[in-house]
Amino acid sequence: MSARIVDFWFEFASTYSYLAAARLEDLAADRGVTARYRPFLLGPIFAAQGWTDSPFNIYRAKGRYMWRDMERLCGRYGLPLRRPSIFPQNSVLAARAALVALGEEWGPAFVRAVFAANFAADRNISDRDVLAQVIRDLGQDAEAVLAAAASDPVKQQLRANTDDATKRGIFGAPSFTVGDELFWGHDRMLDALDWAGKL
Amino acid sequence: MSARIVDFWFEFASTYSYLAAARLEDLAADRGVTARYRPFLLGPIFAAQGWTDSPFNIYRAKGRYMWRDMERLCGRYGLPLRRPSIFPQNSVLAARAALVALGEEWGPAFVRAVFAANFAADRNISDRDVLAQVIRDLGQDAEAVLAAAASDPVKQQLRANTDDATKRGIFGAPSFTVGDELFWGHDRMLDALDWAGKL
Repeated sequence: MSARIVDFWFEFASTYSYLAAARLEDLAADRGVTARYRPFLLGPIFAAQGWTDSPFNIYRAKGRYMWRDMERLCGRYGLPLRRPSIFPQNSVLAARAALVALGEEWGPAFVRAVFAANFAADRNISDRDVLAQVIRDLGQDAEAVLAAAASDPVKQQLRANTDDATKRGIFGAPSFTVGDELFWGHDRMLDALDWAGKL
Repeated sequence: MSARIVDFWFEFASTYSYLAAARLEDLAADRGVTARYRPFLLGPIFAAQGWTDSPFNIYRAKGRYMWRDMERLCGRYGLPLRRPSIFPQNSVLAARAALVALGEEWGPAFVRAVFAANFAADRNISDRDVLAQVIRDLGQDAEAVLAAAASDPVKQQLRANTDDATKRGIFGAPSFTVGDELFWGHDRMLDALDWAGKL
């Protein structure tokens, strides 16, 4: 078990992952905990449960509630929220780009910027040009990052993350793991950080 | 909108409703809020979503997680937890008896006792004798309560609660409403109480 490390499992199409990503770094720093970013894809995990769409679209009452809940929570934390025209978005390219970015110091900032593009600015994060702009806004080389994102090792790493998530019993996003201990949802983020801090 | 009143929508088969019922009265009293108990049945609501069993049984990873999460939360709040032999239990008779009990002062105590029978003592709460014992332990007339629970007006009241829950967009338990504002889950209980307290 890794002491004082929380693995942060996120999916760029996930509303509550947006909330978690926006708040994680400050809360982790306060507790002397390091967050390890693990992008993965919910699509294959949902498909294994028989879902070919977001459960928030399949189960309408739950979806209506989720958007109202997000509105309340974003209000509380001072985060902008604009309901995306497309939900859920295809997040594959963004997740691959994140794996490249997370190999460098600006990774967490990129993750937050992609989430903001999706849920605050209603940009299409499956669009290469949109991602290129996000990367350039962070002062990085968009063409180099996107070329690396299209490489086989990065594609393989995203598949491996998704397989690892499945093996760990992860069924939704965001999730947090501390060793074998699993915490699901933005609602459990502080519990996960506190769990890691106690080790 | 009713000021300083929270409607507490619960289902005796629901694990997180057990947690909520155990903690609600003290937390509401601290905030000068009155909890109005609204037993309902999740069965018809789940059936409308295509589920004929608890989603915690249908989606195994989610179910495994839920029991671990309950273990952690019950530990935190000092509540006993014993995983029931039967899950979910048939809660129809218990919900009808609760409607009778909630017409009197001992209603909330009965609700807590039924949840404890299910989730702390692993008793079969669909068994009339088990419910009779719970009622007697509270110093009440078990035969009179169970006779009233079998009456048409009480059966109708439970159906009306379930219909009302559906109309309000409730899709799981526990839920809390303050006027038209919906809060889902034990995780939102304090938010609901605070919302009512601000009115």
